[in-house]
Amino acid sequence: MSGPRLGVCYYPEHWPREDWPPHASAMRQLGIEIVRIGEFSWSRLETSEGCFDWGWLDAALDILSAAGLKIVLCTPTACPPAWLILKSPDILPVAKSGVVRGFGSRRHYSFSSADYAGHCDRIVSAMLERYGGRDDIVGWQIDNEFGCHETTLSYDTSTLQRFRSWLGDHYQSIEGLNDAWGTVFWSQEYPGFDAIGFPQTAVTESNPAHSLAFRRFASDEVRRFCERQATRIRARCREDVWLTHNFMGNFTDFDHFDVGKTVDIASWDSYPLGFLQQAWFDETTKSRYRQTGHPDWAAFHHDLYRGVGRGRFGVMEQQPGPVNWADCNAMPVPGMVRLWSWEAIAHGAELVSYFRWQQLPKAQEQMHAALNLPDGAPAPVQQEIRQLADELATIPSSETEKASVALVFDYASCWMADIQPHAAGYSALRQAFSYYSAARSLGLDVDIVSPGADLADYRVVLVPALFTLDVARLRRFEDCDAEVLFGPRSGSRTTDFSIPHNLAPGCLQQAIAVKVLAVDAIRAGDEIAFSYAGEEFAASHWLESIESDLEPSAVTADGHGVYFEHDRFHYLGAVTCGTFLRRIVGELCGRAGVAVTSLNGDLRLRHRGEQVFVFNYGPDVARLPSEHGCLLLGTETLRRADVALWTNTDT
Amino acid sequence: MSGPRLGVCYYPEHWPREDWPPHASAMRQLGIEIVRIGEFSWSRLETSEGCFDWGWLDAALDILSAAGLKIVLCTPTACPPAWLILKSPDILPVAKSGVVRGFGSRRHYSFSSADYAGHCDRIVSAMLERYGGRDDIVGWQIDNEFGCHETTLSYDTSTLQRFRSWLGDHYQSIEGLNDAWGTVFWSQEYPGFDAIGFPQTAVTESNPAHSLAFRRFASDEVRRFCERQATRIRARCREDVWLTHNFMGNFTDFDHFDVGKTVDIASWDSYPLGFLQQAWFDETTKSRYRQTGHPDWAAFHHDLYRGVGRGRFGVMEQQPGPVNWADCNAMPVPGMVRLWSWEAIAHGAELVSYFRWQQLPKAQEQMHAALNLPDGAPAPVQQEIRQLADELATIPSSETEKASVALVFDYASCWMADIQPHAAGYSALRQAFSYYSAARSLGLDVDIVSPGADLADYRVVLVPALFTLDVARLRRFEDCDAEVLFGPRSGSRTTDFSIPHNLAPGCLQQAIAVKVLAVDAIRAGDEIAFSYAGEEFAASHWLESIESDLEPSAVTADGHGVYFEHDRFHYLGAVTCGTFLRRIVGELCGRAGVAVTSLNGDLRLRHRGEQVFVFNYGPDVARLPSEHGCLLLGTETLRRADVALWTNTDT
Amino acid sequence: MSGPRLGVCYYPEHWPREDWPPHASAMRQLGIEIVRIGEFSWSRLETSEGCFDWGWLDAALDILSAAGLKIVLCTPTACPPAWLILKSPDILPVAKSGVVRGFGSRRHYSFSSADYAGHCDRIVSAMLERYGGRDDIVGWQIDNEFGCHETTLSYDTSTLQRFRSWLGDHYQSIEGLNDAWGTVFWSQEYPGFDAIGFPQTAVTESNPAHSLAFRRFASDEVRRFCERQATRIRARCREDVWLTHNFMGNFTDFDHFDVGKTVDIASWDSYPLGFLQQAWFDETTKSRYRQTGHPDWAAFHHDLYRGVGRGRFGVMEQQPGPVNWADCNAMPVPGMVRLWSWEAIAHGAELVSYFRWQQLPKAQEQMHAALNLPDGAPAPVQQEIRQLADELATIPSSETEKASVALVFDYASCWMADIQPHAAGYSALRQAFSYYSAARSLGLDVDIVSPGADLADYRVVLVPALFTLDVARLRRFEDCDAEVLFGPRSGSRTTDFSIPHNLAPGCLQQAIAVKVLAVDAIRAGDEIAFSYAGEEFAASHWLESIESDLEPSAVTADGHGVYFEHDRFHYLGAVTCGTFLRRIVGELCGRAGVAVTSLNGDLRLRHRGEQVFVFNYGPDVARLPSEHGCLLLGTETLRRADVALWTNTDT
Repeated sequence: MSGPRLGVCYYPEHWPREDWPPHASAMRQLGIEIVRIGEFSWSRLETSEGCFDWGWLDAALDILSAAGLKIVLCTPTACPPAWLILKSPDILPVAKSGVVRGFGSRRHYSFSSADYAGHCDRIVSAMLERYGGRDDIVGWQIDNEFGCHETTLSYDTSTLQRFRSWLGDHYQSIEGLNDAWGTVFWSQEYPGFDAIGFPQTAVTESNPAHSLAFRRFASDEVRRFCERQATRIRARCREDVWLTHNFMGNFTDFDHFDVGKTVDIASWDSYPLGFLQQAWFDETTKSRYRQTGHPDWAAFHHDLYRGVGRGRFGVMEQQPGPVNWADCNAMPVPGMVRLWSWEAIAHGAELVSYFRWQQLPKAQEQMHAALNLPDGAPAPVQQEIRQLADELATIPSSETEKASVALVFDYASCWMADIQPHAAGYSALRQAFSYYSAARSLGLDVDIVSPGADLADYRVVLVPALFTLDVARLRRFEDCDAEVLFGPRSGSRTTDFSIPHNLAPGCLQQAIAVKVLAVDAIRAGDEIAFSYAGEEFAASHWLESIESDLEPSAVTADGHGVYFEHDRFHYLGAVTCGTFLRRIVGELCGRAGVAVTSLNGDLRLRHRGEQVFVFNYGPDVARLPSEHGCLLLGTETLRRADVALWTNTDT
Repeated sequence: MSGPRLGVCYYPEHWPREDWPPHASAMRQLGIEIVRIGEFSWSRLETSEGCFDWGWLDAALDILSAAGLKIVLCTPTACPPAWLILKSPDILPVAKSGVVRGFGSRRHYSFSSADYAGHCDRIVSAMLERYGGRDDIVGWQIDNEFGCHETTLSYDTSTLQRFRSWLGDHYQSIEGLNDAWGTVFWSQEYPGFDAIGFPQTAVTESNPAHSLAFRRFASDEVRRFCERQATRIRARCREDVWLTHNFMGNFTDFDHFDVGKTVDIASWDSYPLGFLQQAWFDETTKSRYRQTGHPDWAAFHHDLYRGVGRGRFGVMEQQPGPVNWADCNAMPVPGMVRLWSWEAIAHGAELVSYFRWQQLPKAQEQMHAALNLPDGAPAPVQQEIRQLADELATIPSSETEKASVALVFDYASCWMADIQPHAAGYSALRQAFSYYSAARSLGLDVDIVSPGADLADYRVVLVPALFTLDVARLRRFEDCDAEVLFGPRSGSRTTDFSIPHNLAPGCLQQAIAVKVLAVDAIRAGDEIAFSYAGEEFAASHWLESIESDLEPSAVTADGHGVYFEHDRFHYLGAVTCGTFLRRIVGELCGRAGVAVTSLNGDLRLRHRGEQVFVFNYGPDVARLPSEHGCLLLGTETLRRADVALWTNTDT
Repeated sequence: MSGPRLGVCYYPEHWPREDWPPHASAMRQLGIEIVRIGEFSWSRLETSEGCFDWGWLDAALDILSAAGLKIVLCTPTACPPAWLILKSPDILPVAKSGVVRGFGSRRHYSFSSADYAGHCDRIVSAMLERYGGRDDIVGWQIDNEFGCHETTLSYDTSTLQRFRSWLGDHYQSIEGLNDAWGTVFWSQEYPGFDAIGFPQTAVTESNPAHSLAFRRFASDEVRRFCERQATRIRARCREDVWLTHNFMGNFTDFDHFDVGKTVDIASWDSYPLGFLQQAWFDETTKSRYRQTGHPDWAAFHHDLYRGVGRGRFGVMEQQPGPVNWADCNAMPVPGMVRLWSWEAIAHGAELVSYFRWQQLPKAQEQMHAALNLPDGAPAPVQQEIRQLADELATIPSSETEKASVALVFDYASCWMADIQPHAAGYSALRQAFSYYSAARSLGLDVDIVSPGADLADYRVVLVPALFTLDVARLRRFEDCDAEVLFGPRSGSRTTDFSIPHNLAPGCLQQAIAVKVLAVDAIRAGDEIAFSYAGEEFAASHWLESIESDLEPSAVTADGHGVYFEHDRFHYLGAVTCGTFLRRIVGELCGRAGVAVTSLNGDLRLRHRGEQVFVFNYGPDVARLPSEHGCLLLGTETLRRADVALWTNTDT
């Protein structure tokens, strides 16, 4: 794939066969090139154990292929059928409460079940034997939305056995584990690995090291599960077929950089409206953007998954209208699906695939909009997609370049913040988002990278919440020339969830001599004022008490240093308002010689080679930034949901 | 019964025998004519299996009868005694969490337990043998408050077996069920009825068709349970003895029209203050009416249960003071118990029975007020009842006539809205109440009828939330001459919880050509303005995107049609503010030639033959509407809790 | 002990042996005299059943002793080790939900387990045999924070057996129990004690008498558990060694007066900031005092535990910085730890022991501040403690005298209010606190006493929430000369949770002739105005409807009497605003000849002999009250967290 291409998710098993040819034809006419298929079809592919029915899928693939469509075929392992569960009920996951999570929806399996792994081997092998050689299949998707519905963690017997074994491998001896976890505290010492349970039903908080180990283990289990299918598929497919998995938004339950290594292209499912309502945003924000999504939300995930995919990503499911699964499911404003699509493409997406071809009038997602209504009539959104397809045909493609700004994102830090919030409202994901948002409000492109990434070419590096900093990680920051901004809680924990010997921020003190003595956790709604260069800003949630010989750049009224700077290294010891983040990110860019474009609230830019995209997420009409090149799309004036694109070269 | 009569709930088993004669005598002096007795007395009637003790009840009945009181005798099946549970623990209900709901309060049985059905047969038969022939018994009450404390749904083994059997009967084949539920979605296909569980512990939302089937089944089980006792009682009692069950307020867990068919008179338990606090009302409303109840709440239920009882209803338990079971239990203002009683009578109640004679100083309801204090002294409320009894003796009775306005209420729609709220805050009951309230604020009487009811004589029909519309139901609307107003979600689902083939509002499109393409679910607190006849109103929660060739009567700022009209049919595609509902109900009445009386906020009217009752629920003094007849009760000026009654004839 | 002495909690098992001597030396230099040790060390003392390792503790004690420190040695029974749980999993407590509460934190035992009692006997006896004779041990602490993490109530099998047996002892016959509980209501009659379960899974509310009996039983079990260890320790220790247990704040799950009888000195763990956030205070209060704690919170507990300890108490764990266990963990303002320490001493504390010597970088409490940082450096708070130690050396000690004002506090009333809140927001503890706070705002010292206490020498007695009043208790009030103020719900229940025969306030009617006919429970946020001496005040939550021949001193707009007075007896039938409480407490003091000092909001006084302490909890600078003696500490002007001390004699 090079893309950008448009795609669609399609379920031929939901519709009578006579509908398939007109469906395929209508897809092509709309500008669709790729069709994802099969991820929930196990009960139709294997009707009872070992009894396969390929006929319908053969036919569907042939019809789509004949219409000139290319296929992404999925393994159906997100939905083991009823007959399988009746035979092997032990594969069901168990909730933290101890209740078995039963059949009747999806993802009802434990990642650690050896029994289930065998079933998966059988269906995946059979599919490969049947379809591994087809030319029309350009990619394979493994399973569907790992971890959705809180299924990363399961408390079943298979998981416990594997967790104990993982601990044995990881710590070698029980003495090592006891020491690492500090189990001498509260007489928690374990006589052996077999004495260890889940961090589940303790009378009060479990040992955070225990909880973190379980999170690490669970993330490894997801990778192992995915890798097992990936290995099998690679062994049977053409070289040019790519593997992917469709990840999710607002979701940090496993290490996506790690799981992402098992596939060729990261893809994700972009539902900007549903997630706006479910995320941390305040009520005013949720109201303002209820029909557009937050201006940075989709972009953040595009940049994140481009990082997870090592430069290659796509949107496997793009929200095409109201969804069904939020508490309150808003309708996008007209034009918004086109905007979201262009935003994905501007960020380098190779694929924008809409979920889904036709709204099913039955079952759980009957209120989930699609490109066609339940009665088969085209939904109004098709106009936007047709317009987009036409535009794509005329706009020259352009390469995504490495950004000047990198943001380091760490999944393990998200787990640590979950395990030890300490200040209600602190969230590592929210921190990352606020730094990202500050950069975006300055018109900057951002690459989101893993903690171990090479930072050599970046000029500004943002590290909002990297809890664990060892010497190897620190070297990455030291070895580059970038201005580096660290947020609070940086380097505050070892990989075994203990405070470093030299206190937070651990070995970062080698680069900038600040030491965190204590933390003032601030109630939601309260703020502490601090001044910076004569102006007042606000800290909230988390304010560190820092000992340093450095003169702080920002101080509170009672003299606490909030912001310290030394050479290229900047340490911010508080959660602060967005205006302060925007201010200091702007200053780092100034030092680093990175040009910024100060944008008003709802406008966003994104560069792709010489092309500059502009998006208006707000209700108000906005004008383009004063200096711009030749317009390829849009006008000087952007209404809500409008897109503009100019180029800085004379193409 | 013709009524209206006053009654009281009495528990002789709570008091020493020597108190019974003075109790009976005091009841008579207060104007009480009917005494309900026995519904929680199983442990005293059958002290161990098959061992009956009739002596105390014989004596109590004789004493009451001797004082000239008539009896409503209850079957005691709401409270199986401890010895029965020890013998048959399998009859206990199971919560959705899987936890067995144990002994120690009431309603601890599963409607589906065959074992329990046998125990009920024994006690009911024994009571009938003993008391079936008594002349002083005018009515029998079956059990008590079916479904109270969320007991309609149980997740026990007996229930599962019967649910599977019900599904088999209903769908005939597993293929039929799979097709109806759309189980191809997410590979949910069932190989047989025995593979189906409860819609209980799925990883995410269960199939809504599965959930709805379980609700329908559970409602059928309540009817079957009630019918079994009804059949037994009818076989042994005099022709003129009536059967009843005491239903509840704010309660839609089973189909009351259906269960109501098994009895002769519907009765209900009216607690206006407790339910105000537990219902959907906003904080301002809960404060304003905390000591009076909402002006439409009791009336709504009177009209509903008059419908359930096919014209015959009563209040079996009337709140006489503060109750004990709300979060915060307010005291009614003086005069309120009289007002509530008159309101019931104005709506056609044949019985107003107070709960209960004397406040018990022990056990769960010790803080539930009664007509007498725990020490035996009369509670101050007796003055109001004495006044009422005197008034009743002088006011000529009058027949309840069919209203001009009908409101169609559908229990299955309540279940569907519960299963698929889609927009937080949407409630089918709340919708019904808001339409009802709009009509009441115009001085209108309303009949609340079931979806299949004959609408021939009505001139305005309100259909706030009828999710399922088939041809037979549609014909009822087509066959009458009324102006008919349909609310959003009308005809939006089949009986198997799928979207109709021609989309919502399904076959209603034959009468008014509107088609719902999508829904914008609006966050609680947000509003969308729309204009109607030059004025601005507000939509909230639910706004449909409607395709129609009709010119909408009301449109939003961006041109969405909100309200469509065609001939007698009116379709409102949004949840709206009460002022808009009041406006359009007023206009429908204008078209239909139904006179309205525009009332200020807290005043309410109700007609009974030529009599017109006026009630003031508000804190402010109000004046009677300008045109009125000869006053039989009250004055031109109504203070809080005052009642007035005039007659339009020269009686 | 006579004190006041400073102490510290120390865990040598957390640190390498070579650190112990410098630790001990640094403690001494800081002014520490007492070290508490051992309460979570079972896994190190008994490494497997019967296999003891005393070496490390011998060494630690010797080192501390050699440095001149005295020891409080703890039994380690709050944390049974893993090997013990593996052997005897039946000792684990069970949550109300039925889920076993597992190993992995602390307090994972049932008070009723005979099996666990045996294990406790073994470790306690072994410790006594080893250390019972040591001279350096001045006190023993039994277990740690009984009931923490909601462990007072357990729903395990051992507990059920013992509960039944307790009921048998208490009620003698099942008929007695049935009668006392009123089980005839809802046919709840029990055929025998073996039929009684926990008040746990009933379909709706359990019988309140059943719930109360379970609470009484559970409290007795805590006492029995504590007493068993106390007896064993007393049998083996020197006469002058004292026994204690460290109780908690905001905690009423068992009767502390009763459990307190088993020890010599009551101690408690004072965490003013964490509890501010977890308690009932409104958001404004939580913000205002987030870094100081509420001005009355620690004082209330000092006075309470001085009562529990029959005049002798100490602070076993004093918050030294931010804690880790609240939702949001604030940092105390500088000076606050010194203020809290002086406040304890002003109230008569014999010991102020800081929790803990060094912050552990691992496990659950890694974010709990200590006197030393995880890296061993002294925390800044040490300056405050050093200052305090210096001040203590110069300020002459002074005896705590009996106060003029007593407040009667009753744990059983807290349980009854929990079981039957009736009005959301009513809390017996909150009531007690509001009366206490009113008195404190008038500069008064308060003794908090148990319901049966001798009141002879008090001049004003406050009884905010004493639900049960029998003749013996009433006599205490009659036999003194004090002005006595009773709050609402006084005398409203018998010990078996029934309404008294003569209604509330029961036998109090002999002293002041008021009778409560009903209660108006008022929604949180709503208020009812009443007037008193021409001024308006507000009632909230709870307003009684009182019948009395007395002329009320305060009445609502519609004429309800709110406040009645007769001779020395005063009855307040409502929850009221603090301003009214302050007004009437002031008037009672006036009658009783007790001098008051009207303080502005954040200043507090406390007398110790001739010494008067002043504390400023507020953000604003305050001045000393106009009349004061010779200043021993502080100045005329108090900034936030400042302490002043003057003496009224010429010492």
